[in-house]
Amino acid sequence: MKSLTEYLTFEVKTRRAFVNITNDVRDLVVKSKVKEGLCLVNAMHITASVFINDNEGGLLHDYEKWLEGLAPHEPTNQYDHNKTGEDNADAHLKRQVMGREVVIAITNGELDFGPWEEIFYGEFDGKRPKRVLVKIIGE
Amino acid sequence: MKSLTEYLTFEVKTRRAFVNITNDVRDLVVKSKVKEGLCLVNAMHITASVFINDNEGGLLHDYEKWLEGLAPHEPTNQYDHNKTGEDNADAHLKRQVMGREVVIAITNGELDFGPWEEIFYGEFDGKRPKRVLVKIIGE
Amino acid sequence: MKSLTEYLTFEVKTRRAFVNITNDVRDLVVKSKVKEGLCLVNAMHITASVFINDNEGGLLHDYEKWLEGLAPHEPTNQYDHNKTGEDNADAHLKRQVMGREVVIAITNGELDFGPWEEIFYGEFDGKRPKRVLVKIIGE
Repeated sequence: MKSLTEYLTFEVKTRRAFVNITNDVRDLVVKSKVKEGLCLVNAMHITASVFINDNEGGLLHDYEKWLEGLAPHEPTNQYDHNKTGEDNADAHLKRQVMGREVVIAITNGELDFGPWEEIFYGEFDGKRPKRVLVKIIGE
Repeated sequence: MKSLTEYLTFEVKTRRAFVNITNDVRDLVVKSKVKEGLCLVNAMHITASVFINDNEGGLLHDYEKWLEGLAPHEPTNQYDHNKTGEDNADAHLKRQVMGREVVIAITNGELDFGPWEEIFYGEFDGKRPKRVLVKIIGE
Repeated sequence: MKSLTEYLTFEVKTRRAFVNITNDVRDLVVKSKVKEGLCLVNAMHITASVFINDNEGGLLHDYEKWLEGLAPHEPTNQYDHNKTGEDNADAHLKRQVMGREVVIAITNGELDFGPWEEIFYGEFDGKRPKRVLVKIIGE
């Protein structure tokens, strides 16, 4: 069994952002030399997500607006978590809707993707360096 | 390490539907001859889900109604994504709530399931052929 | 390839609760002797979740309140599922928001976690024994 472990670091300039990381992951699949296996990609921080969806700017804006409706940032004192001095409780909630991780099949040495699948890092409490883990196992 | 890769195709006649795919996946576990391992089942389209829950018609109806409340189809012009000519932005949102994929343990050559676990394909933008990937690795 | 399969049982005294199971999983990683691999942790019941987030009491209370807003328990007759004699339809919905499972990388024989990642069992219909599956594969 082969395995590869890599850490990607992202520092977005805004509180919230979506970053397309598909090519980063694709490069690591090549580097791993795994032909048949599984690729785990997960946020290592609990106010961020990794998810798979469409690389279309309008949709990413829809996600932003929708998540703000489901778990509003303001007023920050509506959340008990923010009594700790944080103001990011909403980010912990948004991350649960979008998910922590994706697991992707590797077939014939490539991410086995449908036509529109792209991998995104979803940042909900940015302005600082945060990591994504890529773990590949297989043969 | 053994591995198996298969693609299931579904074409539902309605915009939204839930299809029980448990037996399809079970058959593939047998075919794989994997006794101990992991089974990934994921939608290959970004307006569909694979999830595990109860095979009970009332509950599936509750999901349908609940998701429509969280991310309504109408009015379609509330979503930027639909400015591209699509009308399926809501399907992209619903899919995030229900999830893209499940990872299931294989133990003694079988899906290692609790008493009520069943695997569903959740379609949120149907009326066309769409695929689900099953990837099994193990020994 | 090594593998390990274990079942954890939880019986919480209340309808809803969050239980930190990080140390249980950590112990199983040691027991598995896997140095590089994947660890799947999933609820075996469809009214419970396994998720990764912050071990902070205020946040867990925020989740409880937020989920109750997204999928209220009362009135129980708003859900078709409850016509079967159950009163737990809301628990099936809450579980979808928080997720069934997590997949965690094992690197150098340890859970490869960011600084604040902790694993929780989320119970949404308790007062009875329910199981969590831990499956580890790797080398």
